[in-house]
Amino acid sequence: MRDVREGRITVGRAMEEVRGLPFEDLGFAKVDTHRGLRRGFPEVVYCPGKTDAQIASILERMAADSSVALATRATPETYRAVARTLKENPVAYHDAARMIVVGTLPRKRTGRVLVVTAGTSDLPVAEEAALTAEAMGARVERLTDVGVAGVHRVIEHRRALEQAKVIVVVAGMEGALPSVVSGLVDRPVIAVPTSVGYGASFDGLAALLTMLNACSPGVAVVNIDNGFGAGYLAAQINAG
Amino acid sequence: MRDVREGRITVGRAMEEVRGLPFEDLGFAKVDTHRGLRRGFPEVVYCPGKTDAQIASILERMAADSSVALATRATPETYRAVARTLKENPVAYHDAARMIVVGTLPRKRTGRVLVVTAGTSDLPVAEEAALTAEAMGARVERLTDVGVAGVHRVIEHRRALEQAKVIVVVAGMEGALPSVVSGLVDRPVIAVPTSVGYGASFDGLAALLTMLNACSPGVAVVNIDNGFGAGYLAAQINAG
Amino acid sequence: MRDVREGRITVGRAMEEVRGLPFEDLGFAKVDTHRGLRRGFPEVVYCPGKTDAQIASILERMAADSSVALATRATPETYRAVARTLKENPVAYHDAARMIVVGTLPRKRTGRVLVVTAGTSDLPVAEEAALTAEAMGARVERLTDVGVAGVHRVIEHRRALEQAKVIVVVAGMEGALPSVVSGLVDRPVIAVPTSVGYGASFDGLAALLTMLNACSPGVAVVNIDNGFGAGYLAAQINAG
Amino acid sequence: MRDVREGRITVGRAMEEVRGLPFEDLGFAKVDTHRGLRRGFPEVVYCPGKTDAQIASILERMAADSSVALATRATPETYRAVARTLKENPVAYHDAARMIVVGTLPRKRTGRVLVVTAGTSDLPVAEEAALTAEAMGARVERLTDVGVAGVHRVIEHRRALEQAKVIVVVAGMEGALPSVVSGLVDRPVIAVPTSVGYGASFDGLAALLTMLNACSPGVAVVNIDNGFGAGYLAAQINAG
Amino acid sequence: MRDVREGRITVGRAMEEVRGLPFEDLGFAKVDTHRGLRRGFPEVVYCPGKTDAQIASILERMAADSSVALATRATPETYRAVARTLKENPVAYHDAARMIVVGTLPRKRTGRVLVVTAGTSDLPVAEEAALTAEAMGARVERLTDVGVAGVHRVIEHRRALEQAKVIVVVAGMEGALPSVVSGLVDRPVIAVPTSVGYGASFDGLAALLTMLNACSPGVAVVNIDNGFGAGYLAAQINAG
Amino acid sequence: MRDVREGRITVGRAMEEVRGLPFEDLGFAKVDTHRGLRRGFPEVVYCPGKTDAQIASILERMAADSSVALATRATPETYRAVARTLKENPVAYHDAARMIVVGTLPRKRTGRVLVVTAGTSDLPVAEEAALTAEAMGARVERLTDVGVAGVHRVIEHRRALEQAKVIVVVAGMEGALPSVVSGLVDRPVIAVPTSVGYGASFDGLAALLTMLNACSPGVAVVNIDNGFGAGYLAAQINAG
Amino acid sequence: MRDVREGRITVGRAMEEVRGLPFEDLGFAKVDTHRGLRRGFPEVVYCPGKTDAQIASILERMAADSSVALATRATPETYRAVARTLKENPVAYHDAARMIVVGTLPRKRTGRVLVVTAGTSDLPVAEEAALTAEAMGARVERLTDVGVAGVHRVIEHRRALEQAKVIVVVAGMEGALPSVVSGLVDRPVIAVPTSVGYGASFDGLAALLTMLNACSPGVAVVNIDNGFGAGYLAAQINAG
Amino acid sequence: MRDVREGRITVGRAMEEVRGLPFEDLGFAKVDTHRGLRRGFPEVVYCPGKTDAQIASILERMAADSSVALATRATPETYRAVARTLKENPVAYHDAARMIVVGTLPRKRTGRVLVVTAGTSDLPVAEEAALTAEAMGARVERLTDVGVAGVHRVIEHRRALEQAKVIVVVAGMEGALPSVVSGLVDRPVIAVPTSVGYGASFDGLAALLTMLNACSPGVAVVNIDNGFGAGYLAAQINAG
Repeated sequence: MRDVREGRITVGRAMEEVRGLPFEDLGFAKVDTHRGLRRGFPEVVYCPGKTDAQIASILERMAADSSVALATRATPETYRAVARTLKENPVAYHDAARMIVVGTLPRKRTGRVLVVTAGTSDLPVAEEAALTAEAMGARVERLTDVGVAGVHRVIEHRRALEQAKVIVVVAGMEGALPSVVSGLVDRPVIAVPTSVGYGASFDGLAALLTMLNACSPGVAVVNIDNGFGAGYLAAQINAG
Repeated sequence: MRDVREGRITVGRAMEEVRGLPFEDLGFAKVDTHRGLRRGFPEVVYCPGKTDAQIASILERMAADSSVALATRATPETYRAVARTLKENPVAYHDAARMIVVGTLPRKRTGRVLVVTAGTSDLPVAEEAALTAEAMGARVERLTDVGVAGVHRVIEHRRALEQAKVIVVVAGMEGALPSVVSGLVDRPVIAVPTSVGYGASFDGLAALLTMLNACSPGVAVVNIDNGFGAGYLAAQINAG
Repeated sequence: MRDVREGRITVGRAMEEVRGLPFEDLGFAKVDTHRGLRRGFPEVVYCPGKTDAQIASILERMAADSSVALATRATPETYRAVARTLKENPVAYHDAARMIVVGTLPRKRTGRVLVVTAGTSDLPVAEEAALTAEAMGARVERLTDVGVAGVHRVIEHRRALEQAKVIVVVAGMEGALPSVVSGLVDRPVIAVPTSVGYGASFDGLAALLTMLNACSPGVAVVNIDNGFGAGYLAAQINAG
Repeated sequence: MRDVREGRITVGRAMEEVRGLPFEDLGFAKVDTHRGLRRGFPEVVYCPGKTDAQIASILERMAADSSVALATRATPETYRAVARTLKENPVAYHDAARMIVVGTLPRKRTGRVLVVTAGTSDLPVAEEAALTAEAMGARVERLTDVGVAGVHRVIEHRRALEQAKVIVVVAGMEGALPSVVSGLVDRPVIAVPTSVGYGASFDGLAALLTMLNACSPGVAVVNIDNGFGAGYLAAQINAG
Repeated sequence: MRDVREGRITVGRAMEEVRGLPFEDLGFAKVDTHRGLRRGFPEVVYCPGKTDAQIASILERMAADSSVALATRATPETYRAVARTLKENPVAYHDAARMIVVGTLPRKRTGRVLVVTAGTSDLPVAEEAALTAEAMGARVERLTDVGVAGVHRVIEHRRALEQAKVIVVVAGMEGALPSVVSGLVDRPVIAVPTSVGYGASFDGLAALLTMLNACSPGVAVVNIDNGFGAGYLAAQINAG
Repeated sequence: MRDVREGRITVGRAMEEVRGLPFEDLGFAKVDTHRGLRRGFPEVVYCPGKTDAQIASILERMAADSSVALATRATPETYRAVARTLKENPVAYHDAARMIVVGTLPRKRTGRVLVVTAGTSDLPVAEEAALTAEAMGARVERLTDVGVAGVHRVIEHRRALEQAKVIVVVAGMEGALPSVVSGLVDRPVIAVPTSVGYGASFDGLAALLTMLNACSPGVAVVNIDNGFGAGYLAAQINAG
Repeated sequence: MRDVREGRITVGRAMEEVRGLPFEDLGFAKVDTHRGLRRGFPEVVYCPGKTDAQIASILERMAADSSVALATRATPETYRAVARTLKENPVAYHDAARMIVVGTLPRKRTGRVLVVTAGTSDLPVAEEAALTAEAMGARVERLTDVGVAGVHRVIEHRRALEQAKVIVVVAGMEGALPSVVSGLVDRPVIAVPTSVGYGASFDGLAALLTMLNACSPGVAVVNIDNGFGAGYLAAQINAG
Repeated sequence: MRDVREGRITVGRAMEEVRGLPFEDLGFAKVDTHRGLRRGFPEVVYCPGKTDAQIASILERMAADSSVALATRATPETYRAVARTLKENPVAYHDAARMIVVGTLPRKRTGRVLVVTAGTSDLPVAEEAALTAEAMGARVERLTDVGVAGVHRVIEHRRALEQAKVIVVVAGMEGALPSVVSGLVDRPVIAVPTSVGYGASFDGLAALLTMLNACSPGVAVVNIDNGFGAGYLAAQINAG
């Protein structure tokens, strides 16, 4: 908008042009191709509820405008379907993160995002966060299996916590880890509740509420199992 | 039942006798006078929703059978009404615990119950637990304001934790403290969520769920704000 | 901490040593090998969400430091995978409790933990509690199918209730049994709500709320279906 | 409808007549004056959210068609306002039940409705049930303060339970009493959860869920604190 | 209890005898064989969560003491397993009600229970109610597919409503039918919410709440999908 | 936007102009003065949480651009404060609707909106709907106190239902009325749940769920107690 | 009712006739054949929980009275079963909408209903709405994949929004689109929350709550995933 | 820890020293005086549930170690009590933010935090966020009353959005604003749901869920009404 040429071109026309550009209409999805510019990173495809063909098609269009495109919660089957369709692009499947990466991750990564995980079962969500942040250019470190039941394990790693620019903490069940981490160091903490647990964990609700009520300031929360969202936000802060 | 005399006395009669004894009928409340024997401690009056006259009357009857009788969530007004009615008994008001004590607390207390509190606002519930345990003969120690936002404060007190026979942990907001405490020492932990908090604490629900999902074993939970129940159970365990 | 040698060794070094010891890093899980000492019992593996390989690997490491290691909510398939991997250790599957036991249960068991079950469908949770307590050295008795709809069945067993040092009560649906049991005898009661029921039982929520609101004091509650947690806590109290 | 005369009178007219009759339009409320016939008992005024003038006006109109008219959840102030307006009618205030009775309760009452109450604080709801049933012609007995924490108190009264035609059980907190009562005798049980309790009682929700999940068949439940509804239904069953 | 012979026999012995009798211990379930006497009808087996062998075994024991025994929520497979085991008894499967009947339904049925169903999908629950009431000796009529969206359909059947001694109303989705029915006639209404619906029906919660808030008195509610409970209670009222 | 002159004026300038116009900045609130044009009706002030001075100031600004401005949930005190400030404008208080009207309601009203109310206590919400629709130019009819407990009352008024262009149905407690109304006639129904009720009505949640699950199509729902929203939407449909 | 001939025919008879007519009893379902007249459109079959045979039978009966009959949430299997049974009728399956259409959609469609969809995964619900409205005679336009994360996409289409007579907005996850759309134009908006999302979307609850709280007036909400209800209501408004 | 002198000093002593320092014990609260160092900012007092004397005493101690100390949710009465006690310190009350500031806000503020508010009633929470960030050294800009019902108002301010380093968005009711804002610019967004709303807003729950489900990545959420937490985190990110 700021770049519109002043002068002869009329408002109506300018509007027309703008209208014409930013969408690439695929029938079932409008790929917002200006988004990479406007937001610094393209949209990412969330796979559940979409057909393999739809996913492949959206990724293909996104890959045309961007050096890297992502798909989250992808099954190996979807990956194979995508790989078959996008023959011209490098396509990789990161199974720990359940993600498809089209294109190449940035080589040079900067800052430092630390992804801390409470338990072994929380790893897929944590990897989704870590890989997303890496795809957006962040240097990422991982610290795994340091739940609050053995709080001294967290404290042992205080130096790692202090060196991070932003910390993502992934925890299910009771979800108390973000509060403990945030109480130890002066760094922004992005908390990710996971649906790991049973009974009164109510599929992650307990961890979500715990994190929202964190008595230590400097903690904000994303949706249950939303590793992508946490990694995205962490990368934004890391780059800020 | 074990004491019934065998022989001449018929079943019907024995039943009659049992029927006649254990209740003292006050019209609005049946005071279970055998309870002191059966359960080791008389019933306790929960004040909200009862008139001062009802409370005084129940306490009077209980005091006749027991060396100490308690009323919880009592206001100073109720205390004064009770004190006016029970002129023959020593009646004291513990305002930090919002409790009325009729009779005298046991002098000789044994074992060691540790009551740990996360924040200043949780103190009334913690005091209710502590005083109840004392009334039941337990030696009680208190550790206050050691929330997880400063987890090193908890760790500093590890020795006190280790010396307790049973630990009561009182916490509102996110309620993560019981898990941290339980992870540090091999002692039974009774967790009391409090209604301290706002927003998504939902009047203690968040803390309750956190505690039920504690990833460290050895933790059990009582109702929100139920300091009395926690103190009672702790005293039972302490005496066991 | 108390054992650190004073004198020549510097703080930094002492810290280093402590850092070096207590974890055995398996990549995906940090096994807390000091925990047996610190807490009296090693960690237990909760199987859902972990691969058979991960479970076997964690159990193997735990078995190296402890005479007995447990895995809960284990399928027969996982058991077979574990048995194949841990050829040097005795490995048993207790299908009523859905648990894997690596090593040998303590021969000499002390005290008395009573596990009371409301209905036939609650048995797997009850067995998880019983076996856990046995693994921790407790003598365990079982009392099954004594729900409140036939309250005289409970009363018949009052002697068994009175002889226990601590009572675990497992119940689904309405979850009223712990309150009735606790009202009969002066013993600590650990209540375990189960997800048995339908409709407004909301997968155990109804039983959970009932137990938290137990009008009889001396009752504390663990998570829905958490037989392990109840057995663990009961064994702690039993040993106290 | 069954009484309409066949013959000359046309459908349209018959409809007109029916239309003309059953309502007495007060502007803010249509009093359904045929209801006494159709349903055996007139409507009852629920006071909260209505002005004293509205309540008095509705009661006046109802009293013109019926020997007795009721208002529930009435304050003493409302009673006085009603008494001032309805000078021609006997108006009484039953404060234990918080009800206004216009007219005279039936002298001759039949059958036997037993109203059982768990705790002292549940009494207002129980009295609302009892008085409503009496107003509808039922003989009513009361059994108070027999909560499940002392289950032997309930059992003592088994004969009273057996003699009732229908039993109303009023309980707050955990709400386990209806299940225990229903398990003892072969009588229909109407369960009334009350909002008595705190914390995880969630204003009666816990008791409501317990009662809905009663493992003993023969129990049905009305709304929280709905003594009127329970008394009404009990009287219907009692008269059946 | 009332029948105990007075005289020589001692209390202890009498108690022993009582103890010995009423249970038939099957290891996994205590069949309460006195229940038929005490409650007028034997216990009924709820199948989910039990093995076919357990179900067959419990039914066999129950059939020995009673002319008819029921199992609810039974699959055809379970039926076949039961039929194979109980070769001596008549065993039938009612697939509309998903119930197994061991023995013969009473020939002579009395009173009149009307089972009203809102929609086609609610039929299995309605049939469970109807068959249960028949097994307990009630004459049962059925009225199907008369939901409130076509309220005139209900009104057409007012005579059938008036002739019933008690009415069971089964409805999912919004659950408004019991209130409409109860407003038309002076009969006790037992409302059964079903889990039929989607979205904000929350598996029957919406219908449950609607029924609990029924503005017409004379309605009580059982658990979601609990046709058995409604039929049982209706039969009790019908026989009263 | 459609009116922008093509030609000389540049995009930047056009944007500037648009930017300059539509807001009137009051410091604490941006009054959207173009809204009357864009949406056909100005914004309405929701009073709770705003000071009298803020309300008066916003209304004053709105009245300058529109013939009528509204404030909802207004107390008489706020009305008096507003009347004192807006001396130049006609200001009226409609206490049945708890609304302030600045300016004059349209004389000529068209179409036909029918506002149906279940109970006397629902009237304030119904009046808010009716007055809002009138202020937007709709002819409004009212039908009061026709709850489903007396469903024949609704049926009597079928002609009025049929003559409406759109029907607003206001109901608390069980909220079944919209479904019944919608089942009778082929008209769009806007359902408004109210917070009238107690216990398991959960402040209107029960009525809300009932309405969302209405088995009769042609029903849509607004927020609990949102008479304004229903009246607004009804007026839009009425004018369509 | 208005058409009943006055004169000879008696009330009783008229009632009989009316009684005889409007239902076609299929045993398991009463097809309300007058409904097409009374409501302008026949009932629609909701498939889940019904057998293919039941669905075919109901559709057959409906098709005899109406030019078009619909079944929602139909699988391809059900479609094939229906097509085999209804050989005389044109039967089509619209897989994007998961609907069966028996008969022919109206050729001439009037007005303009705009169906706006937030994301690709919401399309089935949106198509259900669109097809329903078309079956009821509405001209329907579709606007897809215009979620609020790229709010400029919505604004681009303001002209389409302005030209609609009524707008259906379908959105999952956060459900914010209806509010944004309603804020842009003066048209009635029917909001349809979908169950698309994960974690704290709680199967559509989050979107439902968002829409009910829409700060822009002129929005009403139907049940989660209820495309049919939204399309039906939109067609009613469109025809009004 | 990193600063401990190596050499002569023994581990035990070092630990002792550390232990001695960081707490200042006030009896009811342990002020964590090292926190300013460790976390970059001292603890803040949350006033509700604490007495004026407690608040004053904690603030006094904190002010001794820090140039600025804060108290949130403070009433004017509490302010006056604090001002009377802390005579040596500058004490100010910011009533728009309901906060007490002891000491002086930093003069030199850096970066740029933008606080965006949806509606007038959300202002107190927004001011709490803004003032907290200022106290921590951030330059803060405010943008008020730009709710999604007039989404063009947000778009107008895109430049301000783009210039911010981090954006705090405060919104009640439906809470859709953070998603819209985040979709426009590539900046981290901290979303604060407020309890502004009624009915199905459930005291902020609706807004909270909306924000957690934000379909635009780059959004994280704090507790309902937690302006302080948002401002704190924003300042951390701003300084990073």
